[in-house]
Amino acid sequence: MKPGGVAVDKLLVAKIGGSIIDDERALKEVLERFAAVPHRKVLVHGGGRRADRVLERMDIEPRMVRGRRITDAPTLEVVQMVYAGLVNKNIVALLQSTGCAALGLSGADLDCIRAVKRPKGEVNFGFVGDIELVNTRVVRNILDAGWTPVFCPLTHDGRGQMLNTNADTIAVEIAIALEHFFNVELVFCSGGRGVLADPGDEQSVLARIGIEEYHSLKARGIISAGMIPKLDTAFRAMRNGVTEIRIGGSGALNAENQATRLCLSNTEEKK
Amino acid sequence: MKPGGVAVDKLLVAKIGGSIIDDERALKEVLERFAAVPHRKVLVHGGGRRADRVLERMDIEPRMVRGRRITDAPTLEVVQMVYAGLVNKNIVALLQSTGCAALGLSGADLDCIRAVKRPKGEVNFGFVGDIELVNTRVVRNILDAGWTPVFCPLTHDGRGQMLNTNADTIAVEIAIALEHFFNVELVFCSGGRGVLADPGDEQSVLARIGIEEYHSLKARGIISAGMIPKLDTAFRAMRNGVTEIRIGGSGALNAENQATRLCLSNTEEKK
Repeated sequence: MKPGGVAVDKLLVAKIGGSIIDDERALKEVLERFAAVPHRKVLVHGGGRRADRVLERMDIEPRMVRGRRITDAPTLEVVQMVYAGLVNKNIVALLQSTGCAALGLSGADLDCIRAVKRPKGEVNFGFVGDIELVNTRVVRNILDAGWTPVFCPLTHDGRGQMLNTNADTIAVEIAIALEHFFNVELVFCSGGRGVLADPGDEQSVLARIGIEEYHSLKARGIISAGMIPKLDTAFRAMRNGVTEIRIGGSGALNAENQATRLCLSNTEEKK
Repeated sequence: MKPGGVAVDKLLVAKIGGSIIDDERALKEVLERFAAVPHRKVLVHGGGRRADRVLERMDIEPRMVRGRRITDAPTLEVVQMVYAGLVNKNIVALLQSTGCAALGLSGADLDCIRAVKRPKGEVNFGFVGDIELVNTRVVRNILDAGWTPVFCPLTHDGRGQMLNTNADTIAVEIAIALEHFFNVELVFCSGGRGVLADPGDEQSVLARIGIEEYHSLKARGIISAGMIPKLDTAFRAMRNGVTEIRIGGSGALNAENQATRLCLSNTEEKK
C-alpha cells in the first residue's frame, strides 16, 4: 500500500552484471528467468569484461579507481559502443526471442536519465555522469504500453553529451524513483551467490545483512573491493524506501532461491 | 487522402548517411533541421566511415561487394557497436539537446523490424538481414506518444540473432509500411547534393529523375557505384505508393531546397 492506501502493482528492477554478461549460457539462463516474471519489470545491465577487451584491442589502457572507470574521450567511445551497441542489443534480441517486448535504452533515449558530468575532485573521472533525474513519466509510459525497458549504463547531460554511469547506481536510482508508483523489488545478479561471511568460502552466503553488520564486516576487511560500492549503493535504495533488495546469482531473481537479503537493522524481524 | 477519403497526417522518413555522419558540424546542422520539422518524423542513419575505422583498429579487414558489407561474426560485433552504440546514441543525445524526444532503436527493440538472414547465394554476405516485416503497430504507438524513432541499420531474426541491414533499405521499408497510415515524404540526405547529370560536375544536380531516365543514365555509365543500389531501393518505394521522394544534401529535408525529386515517368507533370 502506498500513502493514500491504494494497492499498487509490483515492479521488478533487476540488475545483471559481472561474469553473467560474458558467459553466453549464464546470460541466456538469467534472461529466460527474467522474461518469465509475469509483472512489470526493468532490466539494467553492466558491460562485463567486454569493454576491457575492446579497449585492449584498440590499444587504450583501461584505468579504474575504487572500482570506477576513468572515462576519457576515447574510452567513452568504446564503452558507448560496447554497452549500448554490443551488449544491449544482444540482450534485447535474446529477450525478444523469448517473447519479452524488450526496449533497449540509454539515459539519452527519451531523456530517461539525465546526469551531470562529475566535477573534477581528487580524481578526474572524465565523462562520468552523476544522475540528476530519472524521467518516471516516460518510464511509466513504456511500462504501461506493456514494454520492458533494458537500460545500458549510459546517461546524458541534456546538452548532447553522453556520459558513463555505473550500472548498480542506475538500477538503484530507477528503483528509488519508481518506488513512488510501484512496490519495487530490487535484485542484483552477478556471477557470485551473494554477500559472503567468509570471503574464502563460496558457501558462506549471508541470508540477511543489516547496515550495522555491513559496516562491521567492512571494518574487519571481510567485505571488500567491488562489494563495498555495491552495498553502499544498495543500502541507499533501502534508506529511500525500497524494502525488498537481494544480492545473488542468476537465481536471485526468484525470491525463494539463495541470495543475501538487505535489511535496515540486523535485529529486524523476518517478514 | 487515403482510400476511404480520410485526410491523414504527414510523416517524414529521413535517412542520413555518408559523410554527414562523420562530419560533426554537418551532422549537427542536419539534426537541427530534422528536429525543426513540426510533424511526425522517423530518422534512419547509416554508419559513415566509422565502422571501417574501428574495423581497421581491431585488425579486421572490411570487405564490400556491390556496395554491401560482408558481415562475418567479428564484423557484426563491430557494426553493432558502431551503429547501435556510437552513432545512434550520439545522434539521440544531440536530438535531445534540441528538445526532440528521440528514441534510438534497432530492429530488435520492440521487434520493430524482423528480418531473415540472407541465404548464401553467389556471395555469402554473412549476418546480413533481408527485411520481412516492419512492425507498424509499434512504430505508430511510438509516434502517437510524440516520440521520434531513430533507427540504426540493424535488424534481428526473432530468434536472438542481430543482423546487419542497409540503412537505405530500412528507410524505404519503413516508408512503404507507414504509407498505409500517413502521407509519407521520404528524403535521403548525404554529403552529395543529389543525382548528377554529369558525374564530374557537382552543379549538374537533376531537379527530377524518372525511372526510364534512370535506366538510360545507368546504361550510359553516368549513374554508377553507390547511387545504383540507392536509386533501385528508392524507386522501389515509389512503385509501392510513396509519391514524394528526394535525394540530396542536408538541405533536402526542406522541400524548397535543391535536391533530386524522383518521379515514375519523365513526362509526369510537376505537381
